[in-house]
Amino acid sequence: MEFTAQQIAELLNGKVEGDKNAIVNTFSKIEEGKAGSLCFLANPKYTNYIYETEASVVLVNNDFEAQKPIKASLIRVEDAYKSIAILLDIYNQMTDKPKGIEKQSFIHKSAVIGKNIYVGAFAYIAKDVKIGNNVLIYPGVYIGNNVTIGDNCVFHPGVKIYHNTKIGNNCIIHSGSVIGADGFGFAPNNGEEFVKIAQIGNVIIEDNVELGALVTVDRATMGSTIIRKGVKLDNQNHIAHNVEIGENTVIAAQSGLAGTSKIGKNCMFGGQVGIGPHITIANGTKLSAQSGVPNNVLKEDSILMGAPAFDIRAYHRAYVHFKNLDDIVKRLENLEKKLKEK
Amino acid sequence: MEFTAQQIAELLNGKVEGDKNAIVNTFSKIEEGKAGSLCFLANPKYTNYIYETEASVVLVNNDFEAQKPIKASLIRVEDAYKSIAILLDIYNQMTDKPKGIEKQSFIHKSAVIGKNIYVGAFAYIAKDVKIGNNVLIYPGVYIGNNVTIGDNCVFHPGVKIYHNTKIGNNCIIHSGSVIGADGFGFAPNNGEEFVKIAQIGNVIIEDNVELGALVTVDRATMGSTIIRKGVKLDNQNHIAHNVEIGENTVIAAQSGLAGTSKIGKNCMFGGQVGIGPHITIANGTKLSAQSGVPNNVLKEDSILMGAPAFDIRAYHRAYVHFKNLDDIVKRLENLEKKLKEK
Amino acid sequence: MEFTAQQIAELLNGKVEGDKNAIVNTFSKIEEGKAGSLCFLANPKYTNYIYETEASVVLVNNDFEAQKPIKASLIRVEDAYKSIAILLDIYNQMTDKPKGIEKQSFIHKSAVIGKNIYVGAFAYIAKDVKIGNNVLIYPGVYIGNNVTIGDNCVFHPGVKIYHNTKIGNNCIIHSGSVIGADGFGFAPNNGEEFVKIAQIGNVIIEDNVELGALVTVDRATMGSTIIRKGVKLDNQNHIAHNVEIGENTVIAAQSGLAGTSKIGKNCMFGGQVGIGPHITIANGTKLSAQSGVPNNVLKEDSILMGAPAFDIRAYHRAYVHFKNLDDIVKRLENLEKKLKEK
Repeated sequence: MEFTAQQIAELLNGKVEGDKNAIVNTFSKIEEGKAGSLCFLANPKYTNYIYETEASVVLVNNDFEAQKPIKASLIRVEDAYKSIAILLDIYNQMTDKPKGIEKQSFIHKSAVIGKNIYVGAFAYIAKDVKIGNNVLIYPGVYIGNNVTIGDNCVFHPGVKIYHNTKIGNNCIIHSGSVIGADGFGFAPNNGEEFVKIAQIGNVIIEDNVELGALVTVDRATMGSTIIRKGVKLDNQNHIAHNVEIGENTVIAAQSGLAGTSKIGKNCMFGGQVGIGPHITIANGTKLSAQSGVPNNVLKEDSILMGAPAFDIRAYHRAYVHFKNLDDIVKRLENLEKKLKEK
Repeated sequence: MEFTAQQIAELLNGKVEGDKNAIVNTFSKIEEGKAGSLCFLANPKYTNYIYETEASVVLVNNDFEAQKPIKASLIRVEDAYKSIAILLDIYNQMTDKPKGIEKQSFIHKSAVIGKNIYVGAFAYIAKDVKIGNNVLIYPGVYIGNNVTIGDNCVFHPGVKIYHNTKIGNNCIIHSGSVIGADGFGFAPNNGEEFVKIAQIGNVIIEDNVELGALVTVDRATMGSTIIRKGVKLDNQNHIAHNVEIGENTVIAAQSGLAGTSKIGKNCMFGGQVGIGPHITIANGTKLSAQSGVPNNVLKEDSILMGAPAFDIRAYHRAYVHFKNLDDIVKRLENLEKKLKEK
Repeated sequence: MEFTAQQIAELLNGKVEGDKNAIVNTFSKIEEGKAGSLCFLANPKYTNYIYETEASVVLVNNDFEAQKPIKASLIRVEDAYKSIAILLDIYNQMTDKPKGIEKQSFIHKSAVIGKNIYVGAFAYIAKDVKIGNNVLIYPGVYIGNNVTIGDNCVFHPGVKIYHNTKIGNNCIIHSGSVIGADGFGFAPNNGEEFVKIAQIGNVIIEDNVELGALVTVDRATMGSTIIRKGVKLDNQNHIAHNVEIGENTVIAAQSGLAGTSKIGKNCMFGGQVGIGPHITIANGTKLSAQSGVPNNVLKEDSILMGAPAFDIRAYHRAYVHFKNLDDIVKRLENLEKKLKEK
């Protein structure tokens, strides 16, 4: 498929600067642009590439000011990043989606399944499962007893959902993620052994949640582990039993939230963050990658770093001195010596 | 099902305080108690909730002293946490367990399988596998050539067990975990390339071990990677080739043990801990979350923190000063200035 | 099978010292040697074991000098580690490899598959897939639409490959790894919600790459996430969208590379390392375990540690002072007191 710069500008409510008839048939990053490709400039770090790119069309923000001549046609829009997102989504919608029930799947006779659904081969849908409309269940997915799933969800290959989990509408779960495994609960038994605490709760995932690949969300001991609407978790996150994550919170890869922690809404965590058990984190908290949080964060919109985490600017100042400790200690020794001499 | 406070007290060898005929039909956390629910109080952090809870019955320790009136019936027991564990287990036992061999599974004709076993659809049992009695093999599990498995084990959906692994009795492995993948062994080859070292050892898992979801335990290069009896590993742990973990050691989520490390018994590690290669850790060692251990820990029952990890109290003291380094350096500058003035 | 010391020496171009007719039929680690086993000594840390081992034959480097009598026959070779690698590989080659197409697999009629291939039960090969010769596809593997795979690859049970991924020759991917899941890309939408950015790029894996178990490599937003030839990634690594990893780079377990980071060739990273987004790491960089890198590393062959990471020797010096901060602050207080007294 081919589009002209003008056609795309109309779609995005933007304005062409340069050749309105420039034709594009693919996307590229600005640093890899070539004839026929459309790219975008949003991150100022990449501005230099716009003067060299071979791309035919570049989306830019309305306030972009060129410092040199540009070969490509520009399309000025309010928000170049959002505009490219719209175009990518349109492109993505045009790819074939699988449909129908493949023969080598297993669907328990008691399961209730909506309209326009795909169930791939080797997918397993257990007893008393309820699934809404327009749901894609890729090969090798397992959906345990009594799970309920809303409309428009996508379960990528090999996702495993344990019994009693409840999932809302418009959720996407990537390959290999495990929802509802037992929480890590053991009681010491007299001597040194540990005895398993049966985990009889479940997991609730609200609407518009996306979970990356190989994420684990454990079931609650009692009650529910809850992922509120709009939450986005990157790959390999671990969410322990009885955790609650507030609306629209976003967590980068490989972070771990210990049992019964309660994360506010609109939080943003970097990768490899660790949150201790029974910890409360206020709305809007931002945590730098690899931070560790063993205590409650009660002030909203805090920005923290370190393990244990504290104010990010204070951390950076302290870390400059840490790197410099060898010199600091020498200055101290020097003072001690001088004082002794006096 | 419904039970009275008195019936439950008799089961737990406890004593009712309040209405002996109070009826419960479900469990809840104390902060979410409602009419008809049974909850427990073990962690003092939650004591305040007992005066407000709507739960009908609360299990408390014998030595609990109420500071205000309590609406719920109490059942006094020696250990409220253990007692709730017993009740949860009874409840859990009452749920249906799957049984029989589902048609869409694959069982090699040479495999020897015990009594009262479940093999779900899309599970694969390879050549010369030996499986004991009362084992649950959920859909999508893979069990490679020559694996042996004891009695009463549970393999949740999608667990993968490579060839030659040996697993004892009463083990539970959660979804997606991978046992016996090749250890990470490569030899530099003249220039810059690496050549794979074939990994011909195996994994041995003793009795009463529980592994969370998405755990990896690599096979030994030669010999065995060994998980001793009673070990409990949380989700997303990584156990490298030739590691040995001692009896009843417990490790929280996302920790990683490098090759040939040897962990003592009765250790407790927090989440996201890292242990270096060829490291020995003494019995009873406790590691705070995110600790890194590049050297042997020879003293038993050490409690360590940091990366590299050292005594936890010393770490906390040092960290207070670290947070304060900006001020400390100013004090140093101040002294330098004063001394210069003199 | 049995071999004499002499036969093995000839195979390795080595020289027997002791009984040329000593017979071995298995491998062992030197500390676990027993009659009939062959072991090797490469790491000097294990030298003491050679005087006690019950092994029948030990491979040693040509320059090894015995300090005491040794019971075992020695085979002197140029590089004992490489020699054992050769023997392990020969041993490994002798084990049966599965072959043929198992009936319970799914292969789309449009897929093009090479010679001498194994496709296990419950493996799924989608539309327009192209696979070379001598490829092993174990049970439960999923290969999405339009994936291309070269010769001599191995996909262990449960690997999931999303659409459009390209994989070269001689690659090994261990169980449960997920290649090509969506990159973690969301745009804030007016208020607090996030809108998914469609991820239309792919993953390219070049020749001779080995990925451990439960690794994730995300597809690019646009363009490709690229793993160059000879790269080796240990278990549970996370490689985000649009990352590029240079040739022969080796990364230990549980490390995470954020979006659009560009890693040089011949790098070595320890476990649990984190690399920030849009970061460039020069060729030959070595990172200590648990390091965090939020800034570009431009100098080749740097050896770094810490979070943020800096020169490893400087880190160790600073850390000694960090552990000692309590004492340093006391010395400072002491000086302040003395100066006041004067």
